[in-house]
Formats: sequence, structure tokens, C-alpha cells
Amino acid sequence: MSLVRVHNFSISLDGFGTGEGQSLENPFGHAGHRLNTWMFDTRFGREMMGQEGGGRGADDAFTQRWEPGIGAEIMGANKFGPPGWQDDADWKGWWGPNPPFHTPTYVLTHRPRPSIEMEGGTTFHFLDTTPEEALAVAREAAAGADVRIGGGPTVVRDFVAAGLVDLLHVVQVPIVLGRGVRLWDGLEAFDEAYDVETVSTPSGVTHLTFARKA
Amino acid sequence: MSLVRVHNFSISLDGFGTGEGQSLENPFGHAGHRLNTWMFDTRFGREMMGQEGGGRGADDAFTQRWEPGIGAEIMGANKFGPPGWQDDADWKGWWGPNPPFHTPTYVLTHRPRPSIEMEGGTTFHFLDTTPEEALAVAREAAAGADVRIGGGPTVVRDFVAAGLVDLLHVVQVPIVLGRGVRLWDGLEAFDEAYDVETVSTPSGVTHLTFARKA
Repeated sequence: MSLVRVHNFSISLDGFGTGEGQSLENPFGHAGHRLNTWMFDTRFGREMMGQEGGGRGADDAFTQRWEPGIGAEIMGANKFGPPGWQDDADWKGWWGPNPPFHTPTYVLTHRPRPSIEMEGGTTFHFLDTTPEEALAVAREAAAGADVRIGGGPTVVRDFVAAGLVDLLHVVQVPIVLGRGVRLWDGLEAFDEAYDVETVSTPSGVTHLTFARKA
Repeated sequence: MSLVRVHNFSISLDGFGTGEGQSLENPFGHAGHRLNTWMFDTRFGREMMGQEGGGRGADDAFTQRWEPGIGAEIMGANKFGPPGWQDDADWKGWWGPNPPFHTPTYVLTHRPRPSIEMEGGTTFHFLDTTPEEALAVAREAAAGADVRIGGGPTVVRDFVAAGLVDLLHVVQVPIVLGRGVRLWDGLEAFDEAYDVETVSTPSGVTHLTFARKA
């Protein structure tokens, strides 16, 4: 059976996966780039931005697991665009003509639209359905490969709460955001079903890897 | 100037410093011992319980900083006793006749009572006052030594929010409690005034050390 995986999901010390006030100018709201600077400093992050260089240490090792073996992604409406993107018929995501997903990518929204085929193998499909049904669709498209749950925090939380996630990689950044969308709400004791490994890296972040117990 | 220090303060991944439903039988509420097992496994923790053995690695190194150089402690009412202890004239804390503090120890409560002198140098004093005023009293009693803020989460949070804490050592346990009293509420961006160092240890916990910037 293919796995359902979450990678490189950054949160603050107080558990916020995004700040308050998400907008076109500030995709992470008042958090700005603070949740992601650790990733921008890795080779993986630089490649994502079309740049060279970046660290090749532990942070990079974690980030590089994001792509291999993935056959489809599921993301939430708030990852695909700023509030109100559903009113913009031309909105095709944040990522330009060639998004980094390179697989079928399912966007959960209550206002679905026709699929959009992008360059490089990414096709955005829009679904108004439950986590279970979205996963069934994505899993069939992945054809034996794994399915990545791409975020944001609400979607990751919903899939974890539904017991659908096999591997959850969370990166805790040592800042207190105070406001935004929390990852852990409603997940009391979910960790009991997982083996957890924790490691801090020289950048100051802490990688938490939850692997579902056999 | 003497320092104000917090040591060995355990929280869950979702930031709870104690669980819900604190009582005589369950001082940490539904959290049980889960926030503190890492400490019970250290030499420091075993000595606290009057036992031998325990690990001598990184967790123990952190815990051992709790006592040296401390001249007074300030704690909250909910650390001193279970809900309602103010109605029990004989309540003298959880710790038996010889508490581990061995200094003047100030309990913040809206219902102060006469001081209680215990064995081993601990005297409990009861204050109904602000963090600033309590610190002034404790600092004078400490006579040049440091003052420890002993918890619970509400008291640590209040002292951090008031800008009074110089060293904050938090230990994050990789469990999701879901309910209880949160440490980080109201502390948005407090970390900007601190240098933070993060290290995970083989027990699976993560030590966060916030040292106030010079």
C-alpha cells in the first residue's frame, strides 16, 4: 500500500502553521517568511527558487525527501491561493507556469473549477469532498506511488485526525507567532499511534518525524 | 544584578505546561506524569525522589542547573497545592516536611496566610501582589543570588510577559495534550528579546534555552 506523507511542514513554538492575515502580498500572513527561512537556506530551498548554493546538512537531508516516490499531492484552498482566489478565473496558484509538484495535484475547495494543466507534469484538479474520498482519488492517480499532503495546517490536521497520515514531518521554528492557524488543535494523543523521533539542527529548528506504528 | 531564571519547565508539543483537571491525586491533571518522565529518568530526578541511579547525560546536565546560585523561588498557587488548598489550614505543599527548595519560597495567592517554616531551609511565604513586587521581595531575600520562577505555566508566562525573566529553560515533550494551561499564550514575539538555543536529546525531548540578549 502506498504511503500518505507530509514533509517540511513548518510551525512556530506555539504551533501555528501560518500567521494571521493571509493575503496575496503575505501568503503566511503576519508570519512573513519566518517559518521558512530555515528552508530557504538549504540546497533544496534554493533550487525551489531557481537559485544555486544552500546548505547540504541535516536540514537539506530532510527537505530532499519531499519529492522522491510521490505520485500525487493534496492541498487545501488556502495553500493554492490567497483569500478570494475562487473569484479570479485566471488564478493558477503561486508557483508560475511550471509548479514544483510535477504530478496530479488536488486542491480541496468548496468551489471547484475545471482542471488546469500546467507545464512540467503538474495538473491542478479541484475537489469538494472529504479527506477519505480525496485520498482515494489521489491514490488512484498516484498509481502505486505515495501521496503527499501539502498543507496548510487545516488540511494536515484534518488528514491526521482522520487517521490517514503514515509519515508526518514537522519542523518547529523557535519563534512565538501568537496568532494564526494551529496545527495541533483537535489532535489530542494522536502521537500514541506513532513512533516519534526528534532532532535539532544547527540552524536552530527541530525536526519531528512521526511514523505510524506498524 | 542577580538573574531571574526558569529551569526544567516541561511543556507538550502543543504548549501545555499542565493538563486539565488538576487535583490532589493528579497534580498535572490528565497529563499524569507524561510531562515529567524524562526528568524522573535523570540522576537529578531520582535524587528528588530520594532514589539512586538515573541518567547522567544531557538531560541530567540541564536539570542540575536548577539549584546552584538560587537564593529564592517564586511559585504560583497552583504549584503549591491542588484547587482549594487555601481552605485547608494544614496544607504545607506537596513536598513533605523537607521540601527541595531550601530557600525562601514565595507563593503567589489571592488568599495569603502566615509564613510556614519547613525543615532544610525552605520557608513558604504567601503574597498577593504583582510579579514586579513579588520579584523585589524575593530578590531582597536572595541577597545577591538568583531568583527562580518555579511555575506553573500561568506564573512563568506572567513573568516573561512582564519582561522579568533572564533565562528560560523549557523542555518540550513530543506529546499532544490537547487541553490544559498553555505557556505561550500572550507571548507573541517575546523571543525577539532572547538568544535561543535548541537541542534534542536521546530521550526524545527538546531543550529550549532562551537567554536574554545583552
